[in-house]
Amino acid sequence: MIVRPHQHWFRRLFVWHGSVLSEILFRLSLNLAMSVVAILCFQWYEALGVKLTLAPFSLLGVAIAIFLGFRNSVSYARFTEARMMWGNLLIVNRSLLRQVKSILPQRPELAQELAALLMAFSYCLKHQLRKTPMDEDLARLLAEHDTQTIANSASPCNQILLLIGQWLGKRRQEGDVSDILFHSIDQNVNQLSAVLAGCERISNTPIPFAYRLIVHRTVYLFCTLLPFALVPDLHYMTPLVSVFISYTFISLDALAEELEDPFGTAPNDLPLNAMCNAIEINLREMNNESNVPQKLLPDKQFQLN
Amino acid sequence: MIVRPHQHWFRRLFVWHGSVLSEILFRLSLNLAMSVVAILCFQWYEALGVKLTLAPFSLLGVAIAIFLGFRNSVSYARFTEARMMWGNLLIVNRSLLRQVKSILPQRPELAQELAALLMAFSYCLKHQLRKTPMDEDLARLLAEHDTQTIANSASPCNQILLLIGQWLGKRRQEGDVSDILFHSIDQNVNQLSAVLAGCERISNTPIPFAYRLIVHRTVYLFCTLLPFALVPDLHYMTPLVSVFISYTFISLDALAEELEDPFGTAPNDLPLNAMCNAIEINLREMNNESNVPQKLLPDKQFQLN
Amino acid sequence: MIVRPHQHWFRRLFVWHGSVLSEILFRLSLNLAMSVVAILCFQWYEALGVKLTLAPFSLLGVAIAIFLGFRNSVSYARFTEARMMWGNLLIVNRSLLRQVKSILPQRPELAQELAALLMAFSYCLKHQLRKTPMDEDLARLLAEHDTQTIANSASPCNQILLLIGQWLGKRRQEGDVSDILFHSIDQNVNQLSAVLAGCERISNTPIPFAYRLIVHRTVYLFCTLLPFALVPDLHYMTPLVSVFISYTFISLDALAEELEDPFGTAPNDLPLNAMCNAIEINLREMNNESNVPQKLLPDKQFQLN
Amino acid sequence: MIVRPHQHWFRRLFVWHGSVLSEILFRLSLNLAMSVVAILCFQWYEALGVKLTLAPFSLLGVAIAIFLGFRNSVSYARFTEARMMWGNLLIVNRSLLRQVKSILPQRPELAQELAALLMAFSYCLKHQLRKTPMDEDLARLLAEHDTQTIANSASPCNQILLLIGQWLGKRRQEGDVSDILFHSIDQNVNQLSAVLAGCERISNTPIPFAYRLIVHRTVYLFCTLLPFALVPDLHYMTPLVSVFISYTFISLDALAEELEDPFGTAPNDLPLNAMCNAIEINLREMNNESNVPQKLLPDKQFQLN
Amino acid sequence: MIVRPHQHWFRRLFVWHGSVLSEILFRLSLNLAMSVVAILCFQWYEALGVKLTLAPFSLLGVAIAIFLGFRNSVSYARFTEARMMWGNLLIVNRSLLRQVKSILPQRPELAQELAALLMAFSYCLKHQLRKTPMDEDLARLLAEHDTQTIANSASPCNQILLLIGQWLGKRRQEGDVSDILFHSIDQNVNQLSAVLAGCERISNTPIPFAYRLIVHRTVYLFCTLLPFALVPDLHYMTPLVSVFISYTFISLDALAEELEDPFGTAPNDLPLNAMCNAIEINLREMNNESNVPQKLLPDKQFQLN
Repeated sequence: MIVRPHQHWFRRLFVWHGSVLSEILFRLSLNLAMSVVAILCFQWYEALGVKLTLAPFSLLGVAIAIFLGFRNSVSYARFTEARMMWGNLLIVNRSLLRQVKSILPQRPELAQELAALLMAFSYCLKHQLRKTPMDEDLARLLAEHDTQTIANSASPCNQILLLIGQWLGKRRQEGDVSDILFHSIDQNVNQLSAVLAGCERISNTPIPFAYRLIVHRTVYLFCTLLPFALVPDLHYMTPLVSVFISYTFISLDALAEELEDPFGTAPNDLPLNAMCNAIEINLREMNNESNVPQKLLPDKQFQLN
Repeated sequence: MIVRPHQHWFRRLFVWHGSVLSEILFRLSLNLAMSVVAILCFQWYEALGVKLTLAPFSLLGVAIAIFLGFRNSVSYARFTEARMMWGNLLIVNRSLLRQVKSILPQRPELAQELAALLMAFSYCLKHQLRKTPMDEDLARLLAEHDTQTIANSASPCNQILLLIGQWLGKRRQEGDVSDILFHSIDQNVNQLSAVLAGCERISNTPIPFAYRLIVHRTVYLFCTLLPFALVPDLHYMTPLVSVFISYTFISLDALAEELEDPFGTAPNDLPLNAMCNAIEINLREMNNESNVPQKLLPDKQFQLN
Repeated sequence: MIVRPHQHWFRRLFVWHGSVLSEILFRLSLNLAMSVVAILCFQWYEALGVKLTLAPFSLLGVAIAIFLGFRNSVSYARFTEARMMWGNLLIVNRSLLRQVKSILPQRPELAQELAALLMAFSYCLKHQLRKTPMDEDLARLLAEHDTQTIANSASPCNQILLLIGQWLGKRRQEGDVSDILFHSIDQNVNQLSAVLAGCERISNTPIPFAYRLIVHRTVYLFCTLLPFALVPDLHYMTPLVSVFISYTFISLDALAEELEDPFGTAPNDLPLNAMCNAIEINLREMNNESNVPQKLLPDKQFQLN
Repeated sequence: MIVRPHQHWFRRLFVWHGSVLSEILFRLSLNLAMSVVAILCFQWYEALGVKLTLAPFSLLGVAIAIFLGFRNSVSYARFTEARMMWGNLLIVNRSLLRQVKSILPQRPELAQELAALLMAFSYCLKHQLRKTPMDEDLARLLAEHDTQTIANSASPCNQILLLIGQWLGKRRQEGDVSDILFHSIDQNVNQLSAVLAGCERISNTPIPFAYRLIVHRTVYLFCTLLPFALVPDLHYMTPLVSVFISYTFISLDALAEELEDPFGTAPNDLPLNAMCNAIEINLREMNNESNVPQKLLPDKQFQLN
Repeated sequence: MIVRPHQHWFRRLFVWHGSVLSEILFRLSLNLAMSVVAILCFQWYEALGVKLTLAPFSLLGVAIAIFLGFRNSVSYARFTEARMMWGNLLIVNRSLLRQVKSILPQRPELAQELAALLMAFSYCLKHQLRKTPMDEDLARLLAEHDTQTIANSASPCNQILLLIGQWLGKRRQEGDVSDILFHSIDQNVNQLSAVLAGCERISNTPIPFAYRLIVHRTVYLFCTLLPFALVPDLHYMTPLVSVFISYTFISLDALAEELEDPFGTAPNDLPLNAMCNAIEINLREMNNESNVPQKLLPDKQFQLN
């Protein structure tokens, strides 16, 4: 995620957007080349009686804009839902720890055990979604034995939920919590389960492949043919207008593709590192621990990840 | 569902999309033929004073794009909701088993009984939605007697929920769970009921027939008449532009039709087999069972089903 | 609701859609007549210097398509919400009976009493929404005395909910259910109350009258004037294009009107009869009753109602 | 709210819509005058080389239609949400009374006390939203003392909720309801609190003023300039087409403004009187009271308010 | 937030919208200058054979309107969600205090303790979101010691929730509330946690930067080039039409930017001061306190903040 300080509108025109850029630039230079070809061929092309006029492209352009608008709103909805899931994760983490601390104020060691499990869950979810190795973070937070079990599992996050369930069951059997309070805490653990499966769903179920393909392909072909339709009217202005229209369509198509998978590390994706860090700071502070980590800040490119 | 590894944008232009293809190709070749007819008849046709100009088609094209956009978002919403239901199924399955394991840690055989019922429910739901025979999967998971009762029922999945309810009632009567814990677990069983009825709703209630008909028919007629409206301006370029515009409209119409029923086995439908498999792996692993099945992977066409 | 077996795309072009048809056909023939008038008057009309060109109609056509698109999505949302309500009704019915059967397995007569009340509620809701007489169905399911009370009430469905509440209160007072289980079951009865008020809301609150009027009137006037705007360009082709454009706009307007009230008996409305029948089959089967009714199937016109 | 019996499509063309009418008529006659000015000035205007063509207005018209479509969906969402709130109010009222009647069947006087508080809440909410005096309705339903406290409060509806809370607390302290049942009933009282704050939110937070202003102003300017852009093509037909296009845009803008505040007494607003009346009928009937009021029916202009 | 009394439609045309104005005016005067340049250069420009026609701009304009429409609905959704969060805050505050007052009617000092914590939470949230110093408000409401702890925390609002949890835990340990009532109240505290994390989410996660950039830049370039495309048709009318079209696009873009961050103090942002004030009035009144503050009213510019 890019976190820029507020900038003057004029300045912003000259700022470039992250990783999408190289692909867009390549495609736009292709479009520029096409425009030059269109200008060069124009006379020879008119002589042949071959005519491409703007009218059908105008119809098609509006249709594509409508479909691209839908494609964008679908991708953005995935991004928003993913963000909401991680927001819920923070809510539930804070609520669980607060519950345990108000029920068992005289047992701070239990609150610390739970906090460790909760932090491990967040880091584990991040690593699972980004397919990065989770061993280091787990080892830092949990006992040797639990780390092993989790790492060997096909579904490590769910394994941590099982450990939280066992921890809670133990509290109930040892009489620390009554059945009602067990139920109350357990409902929050169910919320963690919902966050986990929600993130897995977004991560494993892309937008139907055919849909992305149709829009992508249509945008591409449209931008390639556009210079030939513009040249009879615009002559030497063709490259300017063609590149401008292509920029609008191609960059929105590229951004939709980037937002679609919000758990990556591209500039417009969610800053999972910073979110895990925020959860850790919150939980440790609630337990009055001394080893509260530093807050992660954006780097020089205003980039958090 | 098609699960492709990330591909370069250029390559993707030459990849074909699953089953929709044959129908689209047929319709596009029809459109190509129409374009040739339009070119051939053009002179004779002008002589008659018959004129079709692009302007009214442009108006109609944008109107159709708006309606098609709505049609697409409705179909996609069905797909998304169906996916969400199966996501909830996974959540509830994990939560139910976790609850029982933390309440009755000393009774692993009970957790296994429940897990078998839950797995049977998922497989049964898959078979009910796809109208495939469920006997084999039920026999593999449940006792002979229960399999019989379920198979003879008009609503087999609901019959399994009744068995889960009986199992839970028995736990309560034998004093394993208090009324509060009964309530807590029962709420999750209600969620299973909601998943079942939600999937039945999507499966049994198509998008109003008249709606699909109007959009489908209008797209079809539009594409058929289009070459005749393009030919006065474009002459020999008519086939190119006509097939391109038709491709955009026809393929989105065809995809909307495919997404509308997300429980089929077409390439863009939900991979229910893989989802049942994931649920089974999860539940068996939570019970430390040895017979955890292999994870289903996409085939050579990147296809999961 | 029309439930057609899957048909080849080509065939579907010649299938007609239910009841909307007659109105649409009438309006289209009016439009055809207008087109003929436009062609006949054309010379006289040009001589007068009266000119209608397509450009302003093109602008207006796109604006109307946008508003009609919104009108459609609002109507469809009502249809979907109504379907969701009846889906919830099925969920809650099954859940309530399952709860009672797992709590009181040794009292099947109580489960039957509740099932009768639940079935009566569904039938009563159907009759209330369709304004058809409910006496016969109530008499079939309930005791003479209750039927009387319900039939005399201003809000019969709510009266049944009151009976369900009384039945539940009696269970609590006779010690069959504890306060917790009472609460658990009562929450599901609240869901029935939500379904009832939700259906009443959809049924009693039409889309604001002015909204329907503006869109309806604009579509109508647009289609009437269209031939005069098309005739300068299209001459003899005017009727074809005018009827085609009008078909798209008029049929979507007519369908939106039909979907708006989803509880009627028109071909695109919800099949409340079949849904009540499904609920009765489900509940009777769960109680192992012998008198399970036959499943309602679509008639020869693939029509369920 | 206007509740019309179903009318033939042809008739509906000549029915006028409520209060929006006078403003729309005034604006349309202004537009008509503008058109006449445009026709009169046309020659003088062409001589000056001043040219307004339709093309830029076409672009702008479509853009305005898109923004107006968004404006409409936002206003309609407010209307729908407000209706949903009052639907929830009915649900919660019925559920609360049903709960109390099934828990305390032998204490009808308590159910009557609660019903009076609930009815007072609905009437009070109506008066608060419409800024009408509530004294009469409160005096009719509550004791002298309570009426005073409520009327002097800065937030009278919330004061009634506090009274309901006190009533409930008293039931708990007198042992009529256990803690669990207290919790169960109290959850429904929380729902009343949600309805209250939801209605206050809709009522106090208009759509951002700048948004309404931009759309309103743009629509107005567009319609004023339109005749000058139409006159070069349409000559004497300018008034017809200009008024038609303006009618579409202006009436949708005016309706959006009316729907935006759904708690007023304009023809397209919610019939809060009828809703309070329905709640009173329902609650009194549930208590078998004799003084059930008459159902409010639409007046001669099919108007409920 | 601007709270204007209802104004006549005509008057509203001459009212200016808050802070967005200066930026818009600057950009529009730039556009005006561009139009003059376009008129001056026209002949020289035509001689060069450089031609910009409106057709490609028309296509692009509609595409931009679609994307801008999406951008607006996304920003408005953030504004609405933020408002909903603060509505929930009011609901939960009232419900929590009502619960405590009906459970512990004989202990008004406890209700006052809770009310102070709740008020502190609202003020603290406001200050956190607006990055203003919170010390004064905290000192006014809480004990010296608590103020210190909160002010030193990395997440002060969450610290207050922890204090509420401790207060509640104390009530449970001192036997004032049973486990069930603890659960019931605690659920509402969880709602506060959800409000907190929801507001933090909106505040910390802007709309993806690339998205804002693409739309912003495209609108800007479009408006800059527009006069050159309009001038061949409109000559001296170019400035009028160009500024009008630019006004529509630029002002919606600027408003979307303002609504995107609803917690600021710009004229169209949420009036957090007034909301905190309303919460304080409500809670103090419910406790019959004498020091109820005055209601905040809009200033002379109808501005609340």
